Amino acid sequence: MSKELKFSVSSVSESKAKTRIQTRGFDLTVDEPEVLGGTNEAPNPVEYILAGYAGCINVVAHIIAEELDFYLENLEINIDGFLNPNRLFGKSLDDRAGYKHIDVKLETTTEIDPELKKQWLSEISHRCPVNDNLTNATPISFSIN
Amino acid sequence: MSKELKFSVSSVSESKAKTRIQTRGFDLTVDEPEVLGGTNEAPNPVEYILAGYAGCINVVAHIIAEELDFYLENLEINIDGFLNPNRLFGKSLDDRAGYKHIDVKLETTTEIDPELKKQWLSEISHRCPVNDNLTNATPISFSIN
Repeated sequence: MSKELKFSVSSVSESKAKTRIQTRGFDLTVDEPEVLGGTNEAPNPVEYILAGYAGCINVVAHIIAEELDFYLENLEINIDGFLNPNRLFGKSLDDRAGYKHIDVKLETTTEIDPELKKQWLSEISHRCPVNDNLTNATPISFSIN
Repeated sequence: MSKELKFSVSSVSESKAKTRIQTRGFDLTVDEPEVLGGTNEAPNPVEYILAGYAGCINVVAHIIAEELDFYLENLEINIDGFLNPNRLFGKSLDDRAGYKHIDVKLETTTEIDPELKKQWLSEISHRCPVNDNLTNATPISFSIN
């Protein structure tokens, strides 16, 4: 497998709150609820982040369960993120702009030995790409035409 | 507006690569391409991250253009992220798990004065929630039943 994979989205603004996105032939819509200035046609940007995070944990949790030789049954992943929108809306700089903290809750009907469970969770958090990008800083370049 | 908003996803694993997600009544599917072990029915987790990021930039770019008193026309946002999947798959620890770097390219047909453009971009990066969560560390708690 190539050492570096490139993932891309291209997007068009449909309104100030709604974005149409294409990625690898898939179409996605991002919107905001009315209380945040949108028309509530789709999940909002920060919900997309939690969705990608849940999808990522699902993949990694299964890969590592297989490596640790147990069968993972009925995995459910619930994630809550807590955010103060005041900086976004220019109302105050008291808090950071993004999620201040995120809580991840996993459930499975598989009975896992406590030591194995600890190892499994530790590997998940070290090898999940989205977990890495949320818990560590990533360099970003901005350019404009 | 409440000082802290809570956003949530709840998700069920449909296979080791596919996740069904519910958020505020919306349904989303996350999958992987076949080369990464999935059935390619939907964008993958790290593409969801870029989609949420594009949606977030769209919102903030418009809010700030309005504050700076210019009309933003035909905004397009293209984002590329570069990632080495070897850590995820347990093949090597040479690179971090997540995106190593992300490139954001904005286009608009609005002619913006260079000084104003600089101010606009700076405000976007300081006030976009997703940009904050990607460029700074966020505390995350993991728990399991």
